[in-house]
Amino acid sequence: MFENKENRTELTDLGEFGLIDHLAAAISLTNKESVKGIGDDAAIIDNGDNMTVVTTDMLVEGVHFDLTFHPLKHLGYKAITVNLSDIYAMNAEPKQVVVGLALSNRFSLEAIEELYAGMKMACDRYGVDLVGGDTTSSNLGLILSVTAIGKAPKDKIVYRNGAKETNLICVSGDLGGAYVGLQLLEREKKIFLENPKIQPDLSGADYILERQLKPEPRKDIVDKLRELNVVPTSMIDISDGLASELMHLCKQSGTGCVLYEDKFPIDPQTYDKAREFGLDATICALSGGEDYELLFTIKVEDYEKLRMNLDFSTIGHMTSASEGMYLQDKSENRVTLVAQGWRAF
Amino acid sequence: MFENKENRTELTDLGEFGLIDHLAAAISLTNKESVKGIGDDAAIIDNGDNMTVVTTDMLVEGVHFDLTFHPLKHLGYKAITVNLSDIYAMNAEPKQVVVGLALSNRFSLEAIEELYAGMKMACDRYGVDLVGGDTTSSNLGLILSVTAIGKAPKDKIVYRNGAKETNLICVSGDLGGAYVGLQLLEREKKIFLENPKIQPDLSGADYILERQLKPEPRKDIVDKLRELNVVPTSMIDISDGLASELMHLCKQSGTGCVLYEDKFPIDPQTYDKAREFGLDATICALSGGEDYELLFTIKVEDYEKLRMNLDFSTIGHMTSASEGMYLQDKSENRVTLVAQGWRAF
Repeated sequence: MFENKENRTELTDLGEFGLIDHLAAAISLTNKESVKGIGDDAAIIDNGDNMTVVTTDMLVEGVHFDLTFHPLKHLGYKAITVNLSDIYAMNAEPKQVVVGLALSNRFSLEAIEELYAGMKMACDRYGVDLVGGDTTSSNLGLILSVTAIGKAPKDKIVYRNGAKETNLICVSGDLGGAYVGLQLLEREKKIFLENPKIQPDLSGADYILERQLKPEPRKDIVDKLRELNVVPTSMIDISDGLASELMHLCKQSGTGCVLYEDKFPIDPQTYDKAREFGLDATICALSGGEDYELLFTIKVEDYEKLRMNLDFSTIGHMTSASEGMYLQDKSENRVTLVAQGWRAF
Repeated sequence: MFENKENRTELTDLGEFGLIDHLAAAISLTNKESVKGIGDDAAIIDNGDNMTVVTTDMLVEGVHFDLTFHPLKHLGYKAITVNLSDIYAMNAEPKQVVVGLALSNRFSLEAIEELYAGMKMACDRYGVDLVGGDTTSSNLGLILSVTAIGKAPKDKIVYRNGAKETNLICVSGDLGGAYVGLQLLEREKKIFLENPKIQPDLSGADYILERQLKPEPRKDIVDKLRELNVVPTSMIDISDGLASELMHLCKQSGTGCVLYEDKFPIDPQTYDKAREFGLDATICALSGGEDYELLFTIKVEDYEKLRMNLDFSTIGHMTSASEGMYLQDKSENRVTLVAQGWRAF
C-alpha cells in the first residue's frame, strides 16, 4: 500500500508488439483443450469435432474513436465487425459475441440504444448472437470490449505461421481507404471546432468514409476461398496496416517477403483524397490500418484458381527469412518494411 | 455528424438492472448452438457433448478499484477470479481466459508485469489458461476486461431459473467481509491523504482485507456439491450482495423467498469491524457485495447431505411468488428485500 516506484521501464520504449511479446513469454498453456494461445488473430480451443475460436478487442474513446464524428450506431457496428474480422482471419465462422460496456452518465438511454442498434445490425448481418455482457459505469468515457466466439472444423483453421518460401501473398479488397477517411473526418472536425457554422465538406468521399466508419469483415472472402477450394497457408486481418500484418506472417512462419508496390489495390477515391492531404497512397496502404481486409498466402499452384477473381490481388511472394522483408517500389528500388503498432503511449 | 440531442432518458432513472433488461429485450438468439444468452451468470453454447460457458466482466479504475490500495498484483488476481466465479456459478469448470487491457503511459512495464503476475497466479491456481487478449492505450486510466470460458457436461449446468417453492436457500462461506474490508481501506486512504506520515492501521483485519483484495471463487464448493451428489436447482455468485442476487433467482424462477437473519453466516471479524464503522453486519451481508460466495437452492430432500458441512449455511427457503421476497429479522419482523445494483451513474 502506498508504495514508491523504483525500477521503471517505459511502455513507449517497448511499443505494442514488444509489450505483447514480453508478456506472452511468461505464459504457458496447461489444458490440453487450449490449442493456440496468444500470438494469432484468435485463440483456438479444441472441442472434439470442432474448434472454438475466441478473440477480444477493446475500443477506447479518444484512442480508437472520436464521438464527434463516429456516430454511436456506426461505433456499435464497428465494435462487432472488427472482432468478427479476427474470427474470419482464422478461416472460421463467428457465432456469438459478448460485450463489455463502460460508460459515464453523460450518455442517455437513447444513446446506448443507438450503440446497441449498431451492434445488433452487425450481429444480424453476420449471423452472430449477442449472448452476454457486462455493463458498468465509468468516469472515464466510453469503453467497449467485445469478445467474439466462432467455430471451424479442426482441419480448416488457418494460422499465421503456415507460410512457406515461394508462397504468393494475396490481399482482399483495397487498402488505405480507412486511414484517408479518418484524415478527412479529423480535418472537418478541426474546421467545425474553429467555426461551427461551416458545414462539413464530405462530398465525393462516401467510400473512404464508410471504410473508416463502417468496416465490413470479409466473410465473403472466406466463403469464396472455400468455394474455390483454396486453403490459405497463413492468414491475418489487416487492422494495423499491411506492412505490420505481413511482418507478423513472416516472423511467425520464418520467412522473408517481397511486396510489389505496383500491385497494391488502391481505390481511386483513396488515391485522390490521399493526394489532397499530401499523403502517399502507398504509405496509407502499408501503414494506415483499419482496412479489415484479409492478408493471406497461398501455394503457387493455387494461383490459377484466384487469378480471375476481382476480390483478390496478388501483391508479392514469400522468400527465405535470410532475404529479409522488402517492398519493391515502382522504380524497382527495394525498401525494408517497417511495422507500425500503436504509438499512442 | 455533430448532431443535437433531443429525447433523453437518464441512465440513473433505470439503474443497472433496468438498463440490462431494457437492452436484453431487443435481443434474440438465432444460432441453434446459442443455448442461453443474456440473463444468467454466463452464456451457454452447445458444443455437442459439452457446453461451453462464457462470461465477461470489466473492471474500471475509480469505479471497481482504487490503485491507492489495490496493489496491481492483487488486482490482476481479482480480475481473473471474479470471472471464474461466474463460471463456477453455472456449475461449470473454467478452462481459458482472454484479457483486454487498456492503460495509459503512467504505467511502467514493471507495473504491467505485476498485474500479469497476479493474473497468472489466479490462472495457475484454478487450472486456467490465459489464451489471448488485447492490449491498448488509454488516456483515461486502467481498464481490465476479462472473458472466461469454461465447460460442463450438458446435464450439469445450473441456471438461475430452476428454483421451486419450498427449495432451501443455501450460501457458501460467509458474507459482508469484502464490503467492510473496503470501508477500512477507504478510511485509511483518507487518513493517509490528510497526513502521509501516519502509517495505515490495518491490524486485526487480515481476513476482511483479503476478502476485498483477493477474493477466491468457490471451486471447492462446486467440487464438494458434486462429491455429495447434490445438483442445485438454481445458482448464482454473490457479486452485488445477497439481496440482489437472491432476487435474481426468485425473479427468474418465478418464486418468492424468506431469508432468516439469524442464519446469516457472518465472520466475527466482519461483525466487529462493521460495528467499529457503525454499520449493521446484516446490511453489509445483504447489500455489500463482492463476497463471491455461491448462493444456491436445493431440494428439501438434499438437506441431510449438506447439513453437517461447515462450508454451507441454509439461510431460508423459496416460497410462491405471490408471497413476495422477505427477510425475517431477529425480532421476527418481516422486511421486504431491496436490490442494489450499481448506482455509480
